[in-house]
Amino acid sequence: MAKRFDVAVVGGGIIGLAVAWRARQAGLSVTLLERQGTGEATSRVAAGMLAPVAEVEFGESGRRVLDLGLRSAALWRSFAAELEEASGIEVGLRRSGTLVVARDADEARELERQIAFRDSLDLSTERLLPSAARELEPALAPTLRLALQAPDDHSVDPRLVLAALRRACELHGVVVREHAPVAGVEYDGERVTGVRLEDGDSVLAGQVVLAAGAWTSDLGLPPGASIPVRPVKGQILRLRDPAGPGLLNGVVRFHGGYLVPRGDGRYVLGATMEERGQDLHPTAGGVYELLRDAHELVPGIEELQIEELSVGLRPSTPDNAPVIGPGALDGLVWATGHHRNGILLAPLTAELVARELTGAVAVS
Amino acid sequence: MAKRFDVAVVGGGIIGLAVAWRARQAGLSVTLLERQGTGEATSRVAAGMLAPVAEVEFGESGRRVLDLGLRSAALWRSFAAELEEASGIEVGLRRSGTLVVARDADEARELERQIAFRDSLDLSTERLLPSAARELEPALAPTLRLALQAPDDHSVDPRLVLAALRRACELHGVVVREHAPVAGVEYDGERVTGVRLEDGDSVLAGQVVLAAGAWTSDLGLPPGASIPVRPVKGQILRLRDPAGPGLLNGVVRFHGGYLVPRGDGRYVLGATMEERGQDLHPTAGGVYELLRDAHELVPGIEELQIEELSVGLRPSTPDNAPVIGPGALDGLVWATGHHRNGILLAPLTAELVARELTGAVAVS
Repeated sequence: MAKRFDVAVVGGGIIGLAVAWRARQAGLSVTLLERQGTGEATSRVAAGMLAPVAEVEFGESGRRVLDLGLRSAALWRSFAAELEEASGIEVGLRRSGTLVVARDADEARELERQIAFRDSLDLSTERLLPSAARELEPALAPTLRLALQAPDDHSVDPRLVLAALRRACELHGVVVREHAPVAGVEYDGERVTGVRLEDGDSVLAGQVVLAAGAWTSDLGLPPGASIPVRPVKGQILRLRDPAGPGLLNGVVRFHGGYLVPRGDGRYVLGATMEERGQDLHPTAGGVYELLRDAHELVPGIEELQIEELSVGLRPSTPDNAPVIGPGALDGLVWATGHHRNGILLAPLTAELVARELTGAVAVS
Repeated sequence: MAKRFDVAVVGGGIIGLAVAWRARQAGLSVTLLERQGTGEATSRVAAGMLAPVAEVEFGESGRRVLDLGLRSAALWRSFAAELEEASGIEVGLRRSGTLVVARDADEARELERQIAFRDSLDLSTERLLPSAARELEPALAPTLRLALQAPDDHSVDPRLVLAALRRACELHGVVVREHAPVAGVEYDGERVTGVRLEDGDSVLAGQVVLAAGAWTSDLGLPPGASIPVRPVKGQILRLRDPAGPGLLNGVVRFHGGYLVPRGDGRYVLGATMEERGQDLHPTAGGVYELLRDAHELVPGIEELQIEELSVGLRPSTPDNAPVIGPGALDGLVWATGHHRNGILLAPLTAELVARELTGAVAVS
């Protein structure tokens, strides 16, 4: 007779790992099923910006994502400390702030609109003239026209967070199964009873958390129980300054991309936004545009070594807001659709889902 | 007592492998010593243009390289056929011709000068107006100003050539030793007696061929017996058209780079020329400039996938002409300094060196 878990988490990206860790901490028995290795897909490619203010978008769902983002950003410091303590791995949280810059008159006009929008939401930002922006980041090109400072938008190194979460899960007794792609959710007509693996094996579980990101639609769910998640392709470069750190101090965002310093001379330059299905290939056009824009803005990147080109698939819902909480089937819990905000929203998502899972257990 | 070879070839790039194959065919016992795996350094990165006419440079050493290049280009067809026969591996020789293009008035003026120069040397080229050039290569941007066609400048796939040479060497009994870096040449005061490996081992040989390319100066040679070879860094991209072949038919060269179609939808985009020692890192600036220039000239490359970024170190002498033939010590033979022309010059170099080696044996 196969062991039955309280919870099966489908997906071993940052969301699945954080959920599994929190659920296990809450006393549940947990298994996590990952189609590749944990953290090897989108999470590993992410730049790791914790930027609810810089990222805020107009409209109702933008407001909802902002609310989640601000709540999760507020959790990050203690989440990181607790995770480092649990795992023994530093996660590279850098409290450096973010600068959003405009390079020409058109971008400056748009940035004024963005500043006014953030003012209307009472978000803590500052409007900086080029001289002040270049005092903060001397590497910025003199052609700079205007900047917005978001002093509380920080960054973390997702690869370190993934290693720490993986370690914390293992130390706490989460049963992590890699290279175990899930074919579908088992349902007895009343509630979910576990998942079926592609190799034919079944995993029994009282509740199933779907954290499969851009692969969500590959899971065979009964009609009506599914939600539409599409992959949004992002190409991203990892750069390294052979001269060491110092070219940039904080995160710099511009129309079409961003540069995130890791503090050790490494930088992440991202990212395209492309609707191309599950295409994982970097392209000449995508890399060209990222390098062109970054080079125009920070000419000094010319000397940086390219350590890696990679592609991530953001899991995106029709309104680009995440789906967190109970699904249409009893025992099914969603934790996907985090779009550009998976790293930022991981602590809050894990907390909300763990609450849902333990609440449900108490009732059953 | 260690086995003594007639010849020890130092370096397992295309030159070393071709020399070893030809020397073995001539009846000599041959060992080849390579610091990494055969063909893993510069040769593997090369684009594989066989372009003596497009590459010809002004000046005396340019004339000498042209002469060698034309002679070797004339050998390539039979060299490829014989190598394919010997190895069972097709080497991807494409008789597609080369187009050298000018994108603006300055480049067009320079190209007129280049056309006149080739006319003065009686080289077979044709001056093409933009309309004629775009008939040959419809993917070229309409901004094109002028083109030079070199109908006999072709290309080959160096990675296939390397695999074929490696196989032919093994089938013919060349003793190939990989990961066997050579520390120096053994010299008894009268003639060379072999080489000394970094691990302390010695290899006895009647003659030593130095084909170590950009690593030539790492070999401990007696003062006066050495020649100055410096590495010239080239960054290069390998692209792939998911739509298959057809974007470009032949080689296209432009100021600062070239695009070489492989005929199966893959393209090589190269290459920077940088004096940076043995630095093997691709950089943001190098890749940016290659993509920018290629994109301006062939906008359709935007959609191509980037399969690889790599760096090769061209072995270059002060006048950029190769050094082929006997060295200052008896029994020492040079086959290095091929700069941008290693693939083109491999058949001729191998023939010349094999002649030198067998001639010397006959005398000793």
